[in-house]
Amino acid sequence: MQYPEPIAKLIDSYLKLPGIGEKTATRLAFYTIDMDQSDVVSFSKALISAKNDLHYCKICGNITESDPCAICADKSRDQSQVIVVEQVKDVMALEKMREYHGLYHVLHGVLSPIEGKGPEDINITSLVKRLQQNDAIKEIILATNATPEGEATATYISRLIKPSGIVTTRLAHGLAVGSDIEYADEMTLFKAIEGRQEI
Amino acid sequence: MQYPEPIAKLIDSYLKLPGIGEKTATRLAFYTIDMDQSDVVSFSKALISAKNDLHYCKICGNITESDPCAICADKSRDQSQVIVVEQVKDVMALEKMREYHGLYHVLHGVLSPIEGKGPEDINITSLVKRLQQNDAIKEIILATNATPEGEATATYISRLIKPSGIVTTRLAHGLAVGSDIEYADEMTLFKAIEGRQEI
Repeated sequence: MQYPEPIAKLIDSYLKLPGIGEKTATRLAFYTIDMDQSDVVSFSKALISAKNDLHYCKICGNITESDPCAICADKSRDQSQVIVVEQVKDVMALEKMREYHGLYHVLHGVLSPIEGKGPEDINITSLVKRLQQNDAIKEIILATNATPEGEATATYISRLIKPSGIVTTRLAHGLAVGSDIEYADEMTLFKAIEGRQEI
Repeated sequence: MQYPEPIAKLIDSYLKLPGIGEKTATRLAFYTIDMDQSDVVSFSKALISAKNDLHYCKICGNITESDPCAICADKSRDQSQVIVVEQVKDVMALEKMREYHGLYHVLHGVLSPIEGKGPEDINITSLVKRLQQNDAIKEIILATNATPEGEATATYISRLIKPSGIVTTRLAHGLAVGSDIEYADEMTLFKAIEGRQEI
């Protein structure tokens, strides 16, 4: 005997999500049956809405309901700075800081020869085109992750942009605020010493 | 800046699932946006269908599309034995074995004074009523989990049923097949010795 079809189908759907195996999928499906009717309906609607009503901003690649996105459309923001990030979530993290008022460009990935990801697989062409069409941009801040792939991507982009005369900078590396030197890894300590500043 | 409303709502919906925190919910929501349109639509439909098309069998408490469920409706099954389990998933586990051909009764929980769960909170009344109305049942096999709550529930039900003269049995406790004595806990070893059989 198998599960009745409605629950078997729901288990299959949960199984398609990343990091969810058969046991968790089954648990979630049974949990769903006991959820409030209204919660299930809004879950169902949210799935369709997120899939249909959202797309990527044609200018910066950020996720948005409107095109261009709210950030690109906001003319009060500093049009001379563009922070380049790997993914949409990075935009949200930087926006939470409330200290940056420039623009963004979302790559949707990093260069990764191992995974066969080259420059044409991430949002680099649109960045170059954006710089060519927009004279207002004076600085590109490379905020890819501090991983080997993130570093390689930052280096690749900075070399690509250099000839145009636009300033390219990279986020500082060093000790995280509130962290202990004792527990910092060698590379972080090395970067922290290398990037030391006079006080 | 916050996430656009469609994705914020989807994150909220994922957050309502058990064991899913804000980071996982955000990851799942972004993953959903990149899923195939057809997968998202079938996920959305499966949610509604699982909620609306399923209910609990009036006889045994198993989850089902039809009422009574397929097992209760199958007259070729042995009508004299009823296995009492804690939850619907236990029925599936026992059915996978393909060696048991009797009926089931799902309690949907266990007695747990700590959580304030008494006999009226689980499916015990319906079991007693079922035994009173059905002379065919000759044996109740108590298959609640081998936890303190499961044991207490089994003891409670067996005492309740005893006067009626119906045989009540409990699943055997002992070493799991394929397990090492070295790694077995004391209680399991004690139960295994206590329940030893002549060969």
